[in-house]
Amino acid sequence: MTSPLNVAIIGMGTVGGGVAQILTEHSERCARRSGRSIHIAKAVVRDLSKPRGIDLPDGVLTDDVQSVIDDPNIDVAIQLMGGTDPARQVMLSLLEAGKDVVTANKALLCDHGPELFEKARELGRCIAFEAAVAGGIPIIEAVSQSMSGNQITSIQAILNGTCNYILTEMLKRSASYGDILSEAQELGYAEADPAMDVEGTDAAQKLVILCQLAFGKRVSLSDFPTQGIDSLELADLKYAAELGYRIKLLAVAQLVGDSLELHVEPKLVHSDEPIAKTDGPLNIVALNGDAVGPTWYAGAGAGKMPTASAVVADLMDVVIGRAQLTFPLMSVWGDTGPQVRPPEEITRRYYLRFNVDDRPHVLADITDILGRNEISIASVIQHEAPEATGGETRSVPLVIMTHTTTEGRIRMADSELSQLDSIKAPRIRLPVLD
Amino acid sequence: MTSPLNVAIIGMGTVGGGVAQILTEHSERCARRSGRSIHIAKAVVRDLSKPRGIDLPDGVLTDDVQSVIDDPNIDVAIQLMGGTDPARQVMLSLLEAGKDVVTANKALLCDHGPELFEKARELGRCIAFEAAVAGGIPIIEAVSQSMSGNQITSIQAILNGTCNYILTEMLKRSASYGDILSEAQELGYAEADPAMDVEGTDAAQKLVILCQLAFGKRVSLSDFPTQGIDSLELADLKYAAELGYRIKLLAVAQLVGDSLELHVEPKLVHSDEPIAKTDGPLNIVALNGDAVGPTWYAGAGAGKMPTASAVVADLMDVVIGRAQLTFPLMSVWGDTGPQVRPPEEITRRYYLRFNVDDRPHVLADITDILGRNEISIASVIQHEAPEATGGETRSVPLVIMTHTTTEGRIRMADSELSQLDSIKAPRIRLPVLD
Repeated sequence: MTSPLNVAIIGMGTVGGGVAQILTEHSERCARRSGRSIHIAKAVVRDLSKPRGIDLPDGVLTDDVQSVIDDPNIDVAIQLMGGTDPARQVMLSLLEAGKDVVTANKALLCDHGPELFEKARELGRCIAFEAAVAGGIPIIEAVSQSMSGNQITSIQAILNGTCNYILTEMLKRSASYGDILSEAQELGYAEADPAMDVEGTDAAQKLVILCQLAFGKRVSLSDFPTQGIDSLELADLKYAAELGYRIKLLAVAQLVGDSLELHVEPKLVHSDEPIAKTDGPLNIVALNGDAVGPTWYAGAGAGKMPTASAVVADLMDVVIGRAQLTFPLMSVWGDTGPQVRPPEEITRRYYLRFNVDDRPHVLADITDILGRNEISIASVIQHEAPEATGGETRSVPLVIMTHTTTEGRIRMADSELSQLDSIKAPRIRLPVLD
Repeated sequence: MTSPLNVAIIGMGTVGGGVAQILTEHSERCARRSGRSIHIAKAVVRDLSKPRGIDLPDGVLTDDVQSVIDDPNIDVAIQLMGGTDPARQVMLSLLEAGKDVVTANKALLCDHGPELFEKARELGRCIAFEAAVAGGIPIIEAVSQSMSGNQITSIQAILNGTCNYILTEMLKRSASYGDILSEAQELGYAEADPAMDVEGTDAAQKLVILCQLAFGKRVSLSDFPTQGIDSLELADLKYAAELGYRIKLLAVAQLVGDSLELHVEPKLVHSDEPIAKTDGPLNIVALNGDAVGPTWYAGAGAGKMPTASAVVADLMDVVIGRAQLTFPLMSVWGDTGPQVRPPEEITRRYYLRFNVDDRPHVLADITDILGRNEISIASVIQHEAPEATGGETRSVPLVIMTHTTTEGRIRMADSELSQLDSIKAPRIRLPVLD
């Protein structure tokens, strides 16, 4: 066996602690599988006084990231600091100092991927990032290696475990979005500021990375619509279930003819589909290839040890030398891919829910607007309301499932519907995954 | 770009045709992703006069495998001939001639893996075999790369699509095993001689390969029990459904303490589990790792293009040079792994079905035998039978779900139960996946 490989872990939060745990508690296993023993030379933290659950030799823990950059004996940097600044500059410096980099930072790759990847290629270094998308699910490996004989035709994925947990619990316990979110925050499943998760940004960042690997298409967050789960109501989850569907926050990238359809949004998924059956904090990626057909990958998309598992797999790939062979051939961040389809041209079925006045001609007004916009109705649910006791006009929920139409037509219709006095806010519109 | 890589396809059956199709129809894509253009130099067939669906240049098609072995310009052999003889000798000769080998032949690796792998290592060559297990699902990659930071703790898998199709259709259409098998044979989903599939041998061969990769444990088919689906009756599928389970043919390898539990058998799987929801010809592998937790991989486990997709991914790995790095480190065919647990020590719950005489004291006799063998009963189903019209004693089905017990105790009890006049054959005993 050759000399030990020296690694630095930059960022000893939850995932960093998990990585250190695997490398120290299972050092023999890691050495056997990579052909080389792996030595944690430095672990960079922000606060040296904070107690850590892991016992590292004296001198390993440091708050000076420059000491890693300047140490010529460190071969690989595991960069687990969050955010983009100073993470971007740190990664550039690490690459320039001749180190290969393993990272779990999706925001950094989403925003600065092109620059970082180009720099790494220029310097003959590699960046490995399995842990940046879907945690413990080896989806980067699947897209860039296992599917190499295929043109990937679609990616449909649950990429945010927090949202999936909230949606699952809302339906299971007949609870409101707000109640489950508060509970998830108390349990540590959701951040104190949950915006990145519940507004869909986290899933969209991961979709940007997958989209570029699978379709060679460089996109940024502003190139496609992203909608979160924060405006969903329990009522919609229940009506969807009544219709035979589950509502999931889906990240979708798929080829339709010559163009690429891209979006992150809550969608109705038929309850027989593996995606619909993926509950709680799990992630799932449904990957279609022109040769292999549909495949599914599921597991924990976040969390200490699942993410650490992905980081260590990447590290092993770097130690073995595989990552260095893979990286130059990954057609990431190129821009030869298909054109992104304008959202208004996307075609699918829709679930619509309105609160309407319980009085004559309301349904006629709505169906007239849909009809004039060439939107055909597949089914309607309006449950009988209790008889009014006084003379007031009450609101009752009306649910309509449409046949296939375009997002453009639905938007036109919605704009007209917003003019009807008989419809009260909110007007809910959710697409169906076909 | 360097000079083209010359490959030979040995065996131009269904999968070979699919591989040739990807390499010829998508040659630009393959070249871009592997960094080198790939040229089919030879395609070996048994019968040169048989029409092929694929157009290969003159001189490529041959019935002489020796011409591949002897051609120093051929770098990689894609060996897709079935069976073990002459496949074993052909692979040895290819390796000796300095060629790397990609294969889908599970029977060959199951029976002669140790010899072939040792020879390849000795000669500095590699054997890639993603297509040998679970077709289009990249499970070899997952086990040997993505899980490299983990100790795999269990593999529970549907590895035979034919059996899964038959079980799915039986329950869906309330049809007998024989009827669905005949139909599957007519449709080409099952072989004219279905024994390898329906008796569980095909799944067991794949389990041998997975077990050695995941646990470093060399086993042969005779080291663990294998039972197929050929003795299952529709009644059992229906009772299982009534109890909230599906019956699936499962290949299982899992660590229990220091020992390895291994078997292929039909099992009751709770209907909420992803495995239970995997229907039709699909395969699924549930892989547990000590760091990543539970993960699932699903897709087509067989068929022309899904298997060809796996073969081409392997070929790309060889072209890129990754397979040559991975192969020496795969701890396959070693024998340092855990001891295989004697089947009689395996503990689980059981589903039991008897045809019993509809007369007094029968249930008492059965429960007495179970009780004396320390087998505790969790639930009983005995549906009311129509009143007998004559004086004859009729048989009625009795279904018992036990609490956790050992295979040894169940066998003892079964032996005693076989002595009871009041129980008619068959006595069905199926374990439950916990």
